[in-house]
Amino acid sequence: MNNDRVNSAGQHAVNKDVREITVDVDNGLRVITLNRPKKKNALSTEMYDGLSQALREAAEDENTVITVLTGNGDYYSSGNDLKNAEKFLDFDLNEAASKSSIRVRDFVSDFIEFPKILVAAVNGPAIGIGVTTLALCDVVYASEKATFYTPFSALGISAEGCSTYTFPRIMGVSKASEMLYFNAKMTAHEAERCGLVSKVFPDATFKKEVFSHLQSLLNLPAKSLIYTKHLIRQWDIEALRKANEAECERLKERWSSGDPMNAMVNFLSRRSKL
Amino acid sequence: MNNDRVNSAGQHAVNKDVREITVDVDNGLRVITLNRPKKKNALSTEMYDGLSQALREAAEDENTVITVLTGNGDYYSSGNDLKNAEKFLDFDLNEAASKSSIRVRDFVSDFIEFPKILVAAVNGPAIGIGVTTLALCDVVYASEKATFYTPFSALGISAEGCSTYTFPRIMGVSKASEMLYFNAKMTAHEAERCGLVSKVFPDATFKKEVFSHLQSLLNLPAKSLIYTKHLIRQWDIEALRKANEAECERLKERWSSGDPMNAMVNFLSRRSKL
Amino acid sequence: MNNDRVNSAGQHAVNKDVREITVDVDNGLRVITLNRPKKKNALSTEMYDGLSQALREAAEDENTVITVLTGNGDYYSSGNDLKNAEKFLDFDLNEAASKSSIRVRDFVSDFIEFPKILVAAVNGPAIGIGVTTLALCDVVYASEKATFYTPFSALGISAEGCSTYTFPRIMGVSKASEMLYFNAKMTAHEAERCGLVSKVFPDATFKKEVFSHLQSLLNLPAKSLIYTKHLIRQWDIEALRKANEAECERLKERWSSGDPMNAMVNFLSRRSKL
Repeated sequence: MNNDRVNSAGQHAVNKDVREITVDVDNGLRVITLNRPKKKNALSTEMYDGLSQALREAAEDENTVITVLTGNGDYYSSGNDLKNAEKFLDFDLNEAASKSSIRVRDFVSDFIEFPKILVAAVNGPAIGIGVTTLALCDVVYASEKATFYTPFSALGISAEGCSTYTFPRIMGVSKASEMLYFNAKMTAHEAERCGLVSKVFPDATFKKEVFSHLQSLLNLPAKSLIYTKHLIRQWDIEALRKANEAECERLKERWSSGDPMNAMVNFLSRRSKL
Repeated sequence: MNNDRVNSAGQHAVNKDVREITVDVDNGLRVITLNRPKKKNALSTEMYDGLSQALREAAEDENTVITVLTGNGDYYSSGNDLKNAEKFLDFDLNEAASKSSIRVRDFVSDFIEFPKILVAAVNGPAIGIGVTTLALCDVVYASEKATFYTPFSALGISAEGCSTYTFPRIMGVSKASEMLYFNAKMTAHEAERCGLVSKVFPDATFKKEVFSHLQSLLNLPAKSLIYTKHLIRQWDIEALRKANEAECERLKERWSSGDPMNAMVNFLSRRSKL
Repeated sequence: MNNDRVNSAGQHAVNKDVREITVDVDNGLRVITLNRPKKKNALSTEMYDGLSQALREAAEDENTVITVLTGNGDYYSSGNDLKNAEKFLDFDLNEAASKSSIRVRDFVSDFIEFPKILVAAVNGPAIGIGVTTLALCDVVYASEKATFYTPFSALGISAEGCSTYTFPRIMGVSKASEMLYFNAKMTAHEAERCGLVSKVFPDATFKKEVFSHLQSLLNLPAKSLIYTKHLIRQWDIEALRKANEAECERLKERWSSGDPMNAMVNFLSRRSKL
């Protein structure tokens, strides 16, 4: 059985528990795992970089055609680690906002430009940038336990991950607006009905079913897959790049304004009361 | 309890029953009501102007972030008052067609350009421009009694309200074509399934539930909502303006041709036989 | 009862069983039938040409407003006749690939440019170009026995029929990707839920119900239908032409590469084992 574990530099990782992003090759299927289960796979700054690097390695690896992105533990990803924001306190606010918006922009850009087939296996709740980047993947499969939640306005920020472009196109403007303005949370079945997700699986067998399905597809002619992806992406790529730039400009302004800090305190205090 | 009634000039209305468009501020939520229930909220020429003015006031009012549009009585809106057309008989046909197409164009334009969050609470049947403008709102909620019906071809005219652009993007070209060519009527649940509507509510509690839901959202950070709306709208605004212009040019030609008068007589006579 | 049979040159056909594309006018409704039931309505090179010609005749005929496209027998169409490929063996591969890609491009172009209302009545399974061209029709009705299957990657080729543009816009990128990369087959009800199809009918009464429904629409004002179609198509026509060109360029490269021959042998041998 060919089951390699490769780290983000392509070498075998000695201590797999240390890495918050792990990369495995499981019977030919490249699996990128968000591996910070105790923090609900909230994306630390290191995880942004690690996932970007993992995507670039998958793009460059000649033997990789299909890559799957999933989470370890109960969550797929709780999105941007709100504790990243605490670092703002140590910095000049404008400088911190600028750095953060560049990080998000570059991270989202790696999804936009990814040239091969990217499947998301959403094993549990997805939040924020963990949801918006799903619409930049090719196929999204979900466990019945998955939920989809983008509380940008609750956090005083604005939508990212090209969701202002992709969400209305996938689910119609009304459902997109409910998610992006009103913080509506979708269940897995709702996400399937509106087209964000292709198929919902029972939680108990989710990864097993998805991985074995994807492995059965690995002998499809690589060029057919990659050339068709190139065609599909081509019609939207300029709009996606433009959306990413504009959204991150706005994010920078939002973070600089200090509003998110106040909103976040309100948000976290409301949440802690529940 | 802060429950103000303001008229379209922003002053308190003395006799609320006189106005066919009313504007209330209900616990901070701005409510625009189509208020001509005896005529199924068919849009008179005065109502086009009144609703446009109400939207512009909402756009300008600093305290308004979320505005909801709804109908009084059993209907949301039966669309363009076909009796407006009778006025054509008193005028030069070309002049009347030109005036009418400008009225529609300007009215639709106020939806396209509306810079804040606009929610439609569709309390009952919606027809014609009462349906097409829903796709220019942000979020659409519907009572289970709502239906959606755009009999443009039955009336000898052509589609308006940017529906030739928005409908195929929301529901796919097949369902859009059935509505816009073949006069297919959608139920509330069908409209929800195809993405025109976000959520369907029991009729008995419809307005109460929607208004209280929206009031709970009024403390969301205004800039987050408005900036995200600006981003979403930005990707389509040029196409929407172009669609509105082209559709209204075609409407002018249709009205000038005299065909709609014949079709309308057929339509009304068929309807009266049912 | 007005039930004419006209052949692709407009004359009455003597022997209707000879023609693989038949054209009938049934109570004013123009019906184009894929008529090669023993071969599951696989498209021979003659059928590509015949269907193109039938569409051009429908476009030019002054009395035709609504045209319906359907299949005779159990299948709607099993797509490109794989036996067309055998002809490659007799030719220079590059020349054959070039000819085939031009045939597909011109065929798809006739769907893109069709100026009147085109309804597909999908009476059974649809495969490949029999599916992708549905998204270029206006309204798609399906029997509950219909299925939708685009095994481009299994065949070593790449997606055509503008599906790289239309599918993500109709059903969202995730379901489009599952069909176009992973050869996922949709049932009629799934196709209805994702917007590819407007309505599903019981198989026993399918054609009867659809044809009588369409006949009831024939007295709608022709200009209203055609002008609204022109508006709807106008917003996408440049993108559709570009997609068609790019997809057929890629198809030419794919066929020239020889990969499809190998993939097809694998595909057919896997199928024969089932």
